[in-house]
Amino acid sequence: MFIKKKFKKYLLGEKDIPTAWYNIQPDLPTPLQPSLNPGTGKPLVPEDLAPIFPMELIKQEMSQERWIDIPGEVIDIYKMWRPSPLFRAYELEKVLDTPAKIYYKYEGVSPAGSHKPNTAVPQAYYNKKEGVKKLTTETGAGQWGSSLSLAGSLFGLEVEVYMVKVSYNQKPYRKMMMQTWGGKVFSSPSNNTEYGRKCIAEDPNTPGSLGMAITEAVEVAAKDPNAKYALGSVLNHVCTHQTIIGIEAKKQMEMAGDYPDVVVACHGGGSNFAGIAFPFAQDKIKKGKKVRLVAVEPAACPTLTKGQFAYDFGDTGMMTPLMAMYTLGHRFVPAGIHSGGLRYHGAAPLVSAVMKDKLMEAVAYEQNQCFAAGMTFARCEGIIPAPESTHAIKGAVEEALDAKKKGEKRVILFNLSGHGDFDLAAYDDYLAGRLKDSTLQNTAIEEGLKSLPNIK
Amino acid sequence: MFIKKKFKKYLLGEKDIPTAWYNIQPDLPTPLQPSLNPGTGKPLVPEDLAPIFPMELIKQEMSQERWIDIPGEVIDIYKMWRPSPLFRAYELEKVLDTPAKIYYKYEGVSPAGSHKPNTAVPQAYYNKKEGVKKLTTETGAGQWGSSLSLAGSLFGLEVEVYMVKVSYNQKPYRKMMMQTWGGKVFSSPSNNTEYGRKCIAEDPNTPGSLGMAITEAVEVAAKDPNAKYALGSVLNHVCTHQTIIGIEAKKQMEMAGDYPDVVVACHGGGSNFAGIAFPFAQDKIKKGKKVRLVAVEPAACPTLTKGQFAYDFGDTGMMTPLMAMYTLGHRFVPAGIHSGGLRYHGAAPLVSAVMKDKLMEAVAYEQNQCFAAGMTFARCEGIIPAPESTHAIKGAVEEALDAKKKGEKRVILFNLSGHGDFDLAAYDDYLAGRLKDSTLQNTAIEEGLKSLPNIK
Repeated sequence: MFIKKKFKKYLLGEKDIPTAWYNIQPDLPTPLQPSLNPGTGKPLVPEDLAPIFPMELIKQEMSQERWIDIPGEVIDIYKMWRPSPLFRAYELEKVLDTPAKIYYKYEGVSPAGSHKPNTAVPQAYYNKKEGVKKLTTETGAGQWGSSLSLAGSLFGLEVEVYMVKVSYNQKPYRKMMMQTWGGKVFSSPSNNTEYGRKCIAEDPNTPGSLGMAITEAVEVAAKDPNAKYALGSVLNHVCTHQTIIGIEAKKQMEMAGDYPDVVVACHGGGSNFAGIAFPFAQDKIKKGKKVRLVAVEPAACPTLTKGQFAYDFGDTGMMTPLMAMYTLGHRFVPAGIHSGGLRYHGAAPLVSAVMKDKLMEAVAYEQNQCFAAGMTFARCEGIIPAPESTHAIKGAVEEALDAKKKGEKRVILFNLSGHGDFDLAAYDDYLAGRLKDSTLQNTAIEEGLKSLPNIK
Repeated sequence: MFIKKKFKKYLLGEKDIPTAWYNIQPDLPTPLQPSLNPGTGKPLVPEDLAPIFPMELIKQEMSQERWIDIPGEVIDIYKMWRPSPLFRAYELEKVLDTPAKIYYKYEGVSPAGSHKPNTAVPQAYYNKKEGVKKLTTETGAGQWGSSLSLAGSLFGLEVEVYMVKVSYNQKPYRKMMMQTWGGKVFSSPSNNTEYGRKCIAEDPNTPGSLGMAITEAVEVAAKDPNAKYALGSVLNHVCTHQTIIGIEAKKQMEMAGDYPDVVVACHGGGSNFAGIAFPFAQDKIKKGKKVRLVAVEPAACPTLTKGQFAYDFGDTGMMTPLMAMYTLGHRFVPAGIHSGGLRYHGAAPLVSAVMKDKLMEAVAYEQNQCFAAGMTFARCEGIIPAPESTHAIKGAVEEALDAKKKGEKRVILFNLSGHGDFDLAAYDDYLAGRLKDSTLQNTAIEEGLKSLPNIK
């Protein structure tokens, strides 16, 4: 018997690329709690951030403007891969035998393979415009480092990436990608920095950590007047840049003649969730729309579902400002799951504020469940998703099955934040039954939360 | 100083997906010489191919119809990634400081990352329709094997891939990709077949070869009444399926308000060259258009530039029909360059006929030259090209520089057949100066040509 397959994408033209990002700050029901200078305990002022960020990004970080114009120069580069397509997942619906409609926005079409260039490009742009010559950053598995290397190559900026040693050795492909785009990649801890040399002296065999790599990248930027630092998630301006995803998706849902009952995205630092969800959160806040917003996190790092809303550091080394956010404590070390991008102890302050105001929900799933959903998706829809994105798929699948149970024609939209071409070893582990589920105990969470600084 | 960057893509809608493939056979100035049954020496009849191909593909192989309807079921699946974008390479033009305009058609947007699914999908479709349960094929680096695995997963066909042993061990990612889509991958030579067991008995440490893998895949298909064999290049129907690239590109060039003076593509077996070039060859033959068609091959495997037009076998084991084509001799073994997809001793009979009728040209470049061009391209345009595709880029760059020398506003169109995300080790080798250029001697070519069968 011959089975007919159905694929459908909703495409926008280049002229439909949004001309402004959406900043949710002025629309938040409860005003955002300011980040604090860890030295003085007082709210951050622009000068605190000036050594490591360009002024325009600092302004955006603190802006109360609802719409932030996207510079023409940035739109011109967005044209390389944007607008990204919105797909209706007919085949997945069929396999789940659900009355729900499933749509997904696909951000894996960027040259780096994920949503990260959406913010890497404007960050490189503003730095270049303010005369910066070099950007430094950290990277784990390499998604962010390669996105910034790409952006740097486009603007003629030097990019220096501190890549966690264990990933540097185990994941050579992302490193090669960064180098192909001209990025300089160092295994962290390195001999380039005081902090790196200290870490090596303490333990020559240290596997490194994101915490160490952040400190190295910040140290280099702070000491070099021609260099600044760039971060790929968590911060307000990063979440704002990513809203281009949701703004496009709203137009495309309109083309499809639907409006989502629920918007789903995976959650690590928060930028891809914010990117697709905030434009719909605006509808919820301003127009009273009933759309639900669901963040899906790994059971191994349940920041939103089991963390605490508190002031905490963004890094392990306690160098960053204190941010009001959901956190598992800056000393919490998540297990080594394949979704490297979701292994973060905190959540973006903007996402945390939306969560605290009960405008969104969060759920957590084990990685084997997520890979099972990702495998089903790959065989139905043809795209092999990034491990991080399988969490969004799992969330969407659960919504579709719940709709089936309740006989509802639920409209589900999820963000497929990236492809898994560089993560096939994880699928190999899954197929071979080698993937471990989290054995996270409440005691480990309690232990992590003990590291919270004593600030009300 | 701030440098403004420019990117532009020409997008077609789903409704613009072509509804017929272009078959160049009836338009060839000199009729195609028939392939021969190696046993009888007589022209092939459909029955000769029936054990290994479905009847509809055999019909297409021999068809004199100019347009072959694309089944609706195939168009529905093409919608997964087609129409593919056409880009104007403004940044590359700027770096080359050329008055030429450079356009490229990008086929790396398919889930498998190259143009191969354009034919994998219809091949799987026709097999499924004729009741076939299993497809067998060979693969080198894995581009074709993963495309067929994807197509098989979409139609519920079992796919069995014989992957050259040395690649099976060295390139695990493509293997994992095939498995994620449900393909069964065997290291070739394997114990599954008589021929494989014979090869292993003769040399337990053999690295395998494409020749051996073809023989294994054909043997399995020939012996199993529920199985057929699928080939990813060379054959007429494969070239015909790929013309969807050029048909779309023509519409997109029209949108851009240009018509190419020259069309460039890399050349291995011939399918991606045929795909973009044949629709323009039709304009040349039927409308007297002056467009030049340039195939770019590796200096290590100069089939069109140094081969001979003769009847030869498609495989090393002398199992296939005899085809009239440019060939270096079926015993010619090209050096192990990174462009695995261009390491083929022959050329598609259709491309060979177009070449013999002087409707096209061919050039050959060394791999270091090609990677240099690919690196420039990646840093200008953001996409990291497959090693095979860097040959097309090198060809286009040479055309642009020649136009500059002559002060011509030449319009150049090339086919970027795939991305290089799985080939980053090759870029790493290039950056480290480890890539070797070909040391191919004329004596090696003469030696290869001695293996030509004695047929006029």
